[in-house]
Amino acid sequence: MNIAVAQSGGPTAAINASLLGVIKEAYEVPSINKVFGSYNGIEGIIKDQLINLNSTVSTKEDFDLLATTPSSVLGSCRYKLPDYEIDEEPYIKIVECFEKHDIGAFFYIGGNDSMDTVVKLSRYLESIGSKVAVLGVPKTIDNDLFETDHTPGFGSAAKYVVTTLNEIIRDSSVYDLDSVTIVEIMGRHAGWLTASSCLLRLNGETAPHLIYLPERVFNVDNFIEDLKEEIAKHHQVIVAVSEGIRVAKGMTYGEAAERPDGFGHVTLGGIGKQLENIVKARIGCKVRSVELNVLQRCASHIASKTDLFEAEKAGVVAVREMMMGHTGAMIRIRRISDSPYRIAMEAIDASKVANKDKPFPQMWINDEGNNVLDEAIPYFLPLIQGEVPIKYENGIPVHFKL
Amino acid sequence: MNIAVAQSGGPTAAINASLLGVIKEAYEVPSINKVFGSYNGIEGIIKDQLINLNSTVSTKEDFDLLATTPSSVLGSCRYKLPDYEIDEEPYIKIVECFEKHDIGAFFYIGGNDSMDTVVKLSRYLESIGSKVAVLGVPKTIDNDLFETDHTPGFGSAAKYVVTTLNEIIRDSSVYDLDSVTIVEIMGRHAGWLTASSCLLRLNGETAPHLIYLPERVFNVDNFIEDLKEEIAKHHQVIVAVSEGIRVAKGMTYGEAAERPDGFGHVTLGGIGKQLENIVKARIGCKVRSVELNVLQRCASHIASKTDLFEAEKAGVVAVREMMMGHTGAMIRIRRISDSPYRIAMEAIDASKVANKDKPFPQMWINDEGNNVLDEAIPYFLPLIQGEVPIKYENGIPVHFKL
Repeated sequence: MNIAVAQSGGPTAAINASLLGVIKEAYEVPSINKVFGSYNGIEGIIKDQLINLNSTVSTKEDFDLLATTPSSVLGSCRYKLPDYEIDEEPYIKIVECFEKHDIGAFFYIGGNDSMDTVVKLSRYLESIGSKVAVLGVPKTIDNDLFETDHTPGFGSAAKYVVTTLNEIIRDSSVYDLDSVTIVEIMGRHAGWLTASSCLLRLNGETAPHLIYLPERVFNVDNFIEDLKEEIAKHHQVIVAVSEGIRVAKGMTYGEAAERPDGFGHVTLGGIGKQLENIVKARIGCKVRSVELNVLQRCASHIASKTDLFEAEKAGVVAVREMMMGHTGAMIRIRRISDSPYRIAMEAIDASKVANKDKPFPQMWINDEGNNVLDEAIPYFLPLIQGEVPIKYENGIPVHFKL
Repeated sequence: MNIAVAQSGGPTAAINASLLGVIKEAYEVPSINKVFGSYNGIEGIIKDQLINLNSTVSTKEDFDLLATTPSSVLGSCRYKLPDYEIDEEPYIKIVECFEKHDIGAFFYIGGNDSMDTVVKLSRYLESIGSKVAVLGVPKTIDNDLFETDHTPGFGSAAKYVVTTLNEIIRDSSVYDLDSVTIVEIMGRHAGWLTASSCLLRLNGETAPHLIYLPERVFNVDNFIEDLKEEIAKHHQVIVAVSEGIRVAKGMTYGEAAERPDGFGHVTLGGIGKQLENIVKARIGCKVRSVELNVLQRCASHIASKTDLFEAEKAGVVAVREMMMGHTGAMIRIRRISDSPYRIAMEAIDASKVANKDKPFPQMWINDEGNNVLDEAIPYFLPLIQGEVPIKYENGIPVHFKL
């Protein structure tokens, strides 16, 4: 038989490492003949746009480059499968593609939307008596999937955020005057990535002095009071703020800027700039906002070695679990201990994960809702450990291209 | 005798390497007793806020960490010395400080504003018969100093810009739809840093497809036509744009957002967001702007080895030129050849450099004014070569602190 693999959702620095895991393990399985890559997620299956990866990803050099190339080499999509009871057409095309290319298993690397696809497709295939297995490999920098300790892609994003914040701290402290630097970090619904900035305490930093997450309601008056206190203490104040902070139950601060994507999400952004203007008006000190933007999800040049290792391993385990007969499943990471850091990977029912966002725990947020407690540090710390050797050409990191 | 050293102007990833160069060379000179660091540039001399660096920067580990720590460990300032004929007071305080601490030479690491200080102070000292030498060590990510081939700090910023743009290219190409990504790069008056993005061609990239610099007048209608052409060809279009692009002679596009700093400069920013809105309205495809912001000037974790080496060397040479009797001078880098890359460093009259901005050469800009010619590549290429080993603790690069 052959297998197919696709990547979906927003880019990460680790999603190609998971692709590599699937490919490498499949090459080792005698009963698997070809590994097809599907372009632009499940859309490549529907449109029969496949590439034979056996010939294109084959050398040790290909493997190494693929693992350290950010974003999705196969492209991505935000396509949502309809319920098959309502619209069977895409499912019929998928089955045609699977049959045409003798595809016996499909691997989908993605977040909670992609797990929705894993669930729907596996149920449909079961309903028509197909034996094609469908497995999900998790990825998201948001770290907001239920049932898994963390998600591949998060550790690298956190390592980038912490490294960059540390450099911003140095940058912001050169002038002998009061200042506020607001750093806007990704996270539509969950504050995991913003919260990881607490790791800087381990290296003796007092910054970020304030951390605001979507898990608490954001109050502008409290924010200004918090700032005044921190300015009195530290003079150059650093604020880490999630793009998705909320001013009232269920409403995001940047609501005015809402633009729904295919899944009914809103594309936020600009909260940093809005807060900058508020601080300028109400405090009047030097203030600057920095939006980390897409840089935080594609910064392979400072990827976490632990993250890339686990991302690849998740791909490997997905192939193994498929061979054991699993379908409709996602590979999860279960943490055994923080220190020494030990984890296990295993298949779980993907429906437990699909279409839900796991929030950052309330128990790790301080009472005032403006910082993260030290108790979160042992959770985050192992995930950003280690650096990955990068190949440079002309002084620029080399990326793998199909 | 003792010497004093200070850092001024905006942060770079290499300004501490120049400080290290001054310190290390001074330690080698038998006639130099103590090396004082002045806090917050020349203001630390005026206010007599000095630190003895002999005891605080002394071990091999201190040296290595200092070289790879971004921004200015001694702090910075944007203080402008008045003409001494009009206001002698700060000069009198400076001389008092020099005399009190037996300071025989002062080293100022900074850009063209700092060279203004070098010129004024050295002329004043000469006018009162003082023998204290004043020397400038260049730094600026803008690369806009006359008389020097390039400036320490620029190579590291360019390496960051090129690396990050490469990752943005990967990130922007995952979805199968037309899109425009506008990357706003620092450069108030000169487009050197934005122009360096042409180096991506060497690694097979067609992006950035359009490059706009302050050296040409920016025309919005032409921009939209340029974009339409590039979208038709490449679908996912990347635009590199200098923050300081001009719509009419002498006027910057972001003029409405002008806020003068102490030197009469304007703090620009937001051009990327403005262009994003224009593209949204006039083309209507998916569009995103990314402002690299302060990240590009403080990203020590991906500093250029060539840049840090030269930055340190410039500090070393400054001490040597002082010992040879130079004052009122700046250390310049003279390029001997591109390939093999060879340079020389020497002292020149700082008044040739002060208060002027060297533009990116017109001969390296294409006729349409929307891209950089290949002829610029041999200039930029050597400056981003090599990577610097970084010390990590807890998965985070370690910074030196006084």
